[in-house]
Amino acid sequence: MRMVDLIQKKRDGKLLAKEEIEYVVNGYKNDTIPDYQMSSFLMAVYFKGMTKEEVSYLTDAMVNSGETVDLSGIKGIKVDKHSTGGVGDKISLIVAPLVASVGVPVAKMSGRGLGHTGGTIDKLEAVEGFSVELSGKQFIDNVNKHGISIIGQSGDLVPADKKIYALRDVTATVDSIPLIASSIMSKKIAMGADAIVLDVKTGAGAFMKTLDRAKDLASTMVEIGSHLNRNTIAVITDMNQPLGYEVGNANEIKEVIEVLKGKGSEDLIEISMAIAVQMSILGGIYQTQEEARAGLNEAIESGKALEKFKEFVSSQNGNADQIDSIDLLPQAQHHVEVKSKQSGYVKDIDAEAIGVAALLLGAGRQTKEDKIDYAAGVSLKKKAGDEVAEGEVIAILHFNKDDHQQAMDTLYDAFSYSNEKPEKRPFVYEIISK
Amino acid sequence: MRMVDLIQKKRDGKLLAKEEIEYVVNGYKNDTIPDYQMSSFLMAVYFKGMTKEEVSYLTDAMVNSGETVDLSGIKGIKVDKHSTGGVGDKISLIVAPLVASVGVPVAKMSGRGLGHTGGTIDKLEAVEGFSVELSGKQFIDNVNKHGISIIGQSGDLVPADKKIYALRDVTATVDSIPLIASSIMSKKIAMGADAIVLDVKTGAGAFMKTLDRAKDLASTMVEIGSHLNRNTIAVITDMNQPLGYEVGNANEIKEVIEVLKGKGSEDLIEISMAIAVQMSILGGIYQTQEEARAGLNEAIESGKALEKFKEFVSSQNGNADQIDSIDLLPQAQHHVEVKSKQSGYVKDIDAEAIGVAALLLGAGRQTKEDKIDYAAGVSLKKKAGDEVAEGEVIAILHFNKDDHQQAMDTLYDAFSYSNEKPEKRPFVYEIISK
Repeated sequence: MRMVDLIQKKRDGKLLAKEEIEYVVNGYKNDTIPDYQMSSFLMAVYFKGMTKEEVSYLTDAMVNSGETVDLSGIKGIKVDKHSTGGVGDKISLIVAPLVASVGVPVAKMSGRGLGHTGGTIDKLEAVEGFSVELSGKQFIDNVNKHGISIIGQSGDLVPADKKIYALRDVTATVDSIPLIASSIMSKKIAMGADAIVLDVKTGAGAFMKTLDRAKDLASTMVEIGSHLNRNTIAVITDMNQPLGYEVGNANEIKEVIEVLKGKGSEDLIEISMAIAVQMSILGGIYQTQEEARAGLNEAIESGKALEKFKEFVSSQNGNADQIDSIDLLPQAQHHVEVKSKQSGYVKDIDAEAIGVAALLLGAGRQTKEDKIDYAAGVSLKKKAGDEVAEGEVIAILHFNKDDHQQAMDTLYDAFSYSNEKPEKRPFVYEIISK
Repeated sequence: MRMVDLIQKKRDGKLLAKEEIEYVVNGYKNDTIPDYQMSSFLMAVYFKGMTKEEVSYLTDAMVNSGETVDLSGIKGIKVDKHSTGGVGDKISLIVAPLVASVGVPVAKMSGRGLGHTGGTIDKLEAVEGFSVELSGKQFIDNVNKHGISIIGQSGDLVPADKKIYALRDVTATVDSIPLIASSIMSKKIAMGADAIVLDVKTGAGAFMKTLDRAKDLASTMVEIGSHLNRNTIAVITDMNQPLGYEVGNANEIKEVIEVLKGKGSEDLIEISMAIAVQMSILGGIYQTQEEARAGLNEAIESGKALEKFKEFVSSQNGNADQIDSIDLLPQAQHHVEVKSKQSGYVKDIDAEAIGVAALLLGAGRQTKEDKIDYAAGVSLKKKAGDEVAEGEVIAILHFNKDDHQQAMDTLYDAFSYSNEKPEKRPFVYEIISK
């Protein structure tokens, strides 16, 4: 087999066989296929796409390129959840204790990465003492005992994906549905998931700008799951504005607690519930959507879900008092109100820009070495569709830094207004399953 | 400027500016742009193409990436000729002395390369003593004195093209019209041509399999010439069978002499004349096609063209007696007749396969180190459309090797037959100019 022939085959729109895709992935991982051949192959994939079979072979080959996590020591169906990413996205922190409280074992590994705010495990570390550094045995034991554990990713999982992703990043081949789908699914499968619920975001603040692209990505991932025997369901949700009111770390934990108490932002509640319903059905706890919705609502209303969150925090050495009294969570020194310069309705809130404002205030990392300021962030006081009067507070900036002017300017630019009340967008667009 | 943005721009079908294309070419040549970015850029060009402006900027940037030949010391309009390559292609060796004999200065540089038979300069070296290693001054002096000189390529011409071509070869990006066109035109321009006549081959034995592709390549190169102020005309000619009857080196020289005597194969005569007409018009010798055709015919009939060939051979230390007495040219020890196994009409002769047969007999190079056997080759006795009886000789193999069985088998496979007389194909399909 010669790589140049496989590039040409893909370029000419011919089908690649399983062994040919394995040859590409293993050859690249083992450095026998050079970067320059892989990058032209990836560009050919960008233009010609991949069939469901091809993208499943690709995913499987990437899973097999490294270690995989063995969750067989955990009883029950392990359902993982993944989001394609958005600003203010704290859904994992809500649904994990929620579904655990009704009996779905949650054994989650999460990465840190770079972003406007911290990732899931960074947000958890806003709680005093919380540790994501458990041994493999502790992790399994915690899930068996408490029904939930979330740790940092360890081990050499999907090394081929890491190498391919780094190359895609510098060769304008990131934005390809089969490459995105196989990258996400290979990681979830390597982390030992039996079943997967995907939160595919769409809208101005999402990677998939249009509903069609989001549906395409979602159905590709569902197909991969089906080919590789992992029940997979995708929920397509809105990312035309930040999720919820809070963007940051400690303030997002506060909002998670609100939602687990049955309060909080409409979008968060609706999307969390949609995902938790699918997770608990895939986990075999409930048979129907109605049953699941009723059971999950009961878990919130009874306080079981919040209790599970506290138990989870304690089990990983976090200070559960901070969950009971959220004022004990990290507090910034400065809180500056941002007041509207005009009257009307909020038309849109650019999620990306709100993320940048939070980052500027210290809530995220620009380089791997940056330290996150858990107390920093943005609290929105208005969401899209809300009426606003001139001088009314639209947001509060939380920070410990000396300067917040740039964040303030960015925040102002993020808001757009209209004179008429804008039409309400759905929070959940569609649920895609096999 | 960042290469990843330029890759994306091309990928998304946006126009690249002159400075952006210069950045790509210079960055790649200077190793500041890595192979893996260039190869994904080239694949994006494969899919999205280039406008006439873009491909002209690319050509110009490649010309400027290295040295260029200064032919200003030669009086008159220097018209170069290029063929996209075919088997039995000895057109350059016919038209060069022919147009020189009517006053077009021919200052030609040629490469050796790898192939089924030698290139133009290898064929010339079949003549005893012929030297292609002249100094720049000797080259210019020879053209001024004799009106013609052909030498091996020297100097660091178009280094960016060399580097890009090597990358295209291993990344399945060879077969792209703008990349082929800019590669050819940059070399011709760097070699100092004022005007260029292109012989673009089409058919089963050509790189451009269809007439449409050949026209596309031809018009792209004519446009580049126009943008870069080099009058350029393309002649689209047939390559559905080898050109003429002879394939090899010494035997091709014999056929050149035949044609310069006004005899020889119909296809060679017609194509050579079509190209010589354009060259002598671009060279300013004649005004109209009719005038050119009459003048060139006269040069052949009067013996002027053949005399010019002899003068040219002598001027580069070749033994001109071999031109007068072609039996003095290298002769093989063995000559084996290939006899038809059936009766009918020759439908097609696979040019590629005839080339391989010649190569197997020793007429070409498989690696740079291989030595060419000038006496080896194939003489066709039948061409497409000819009637043939079982047992009649269709070709003769010339060789010094011990074994010719594989060449014989290949030759048999190259011939296809039909019971009815096949329709005659044109030799010249179209002439494309601005």
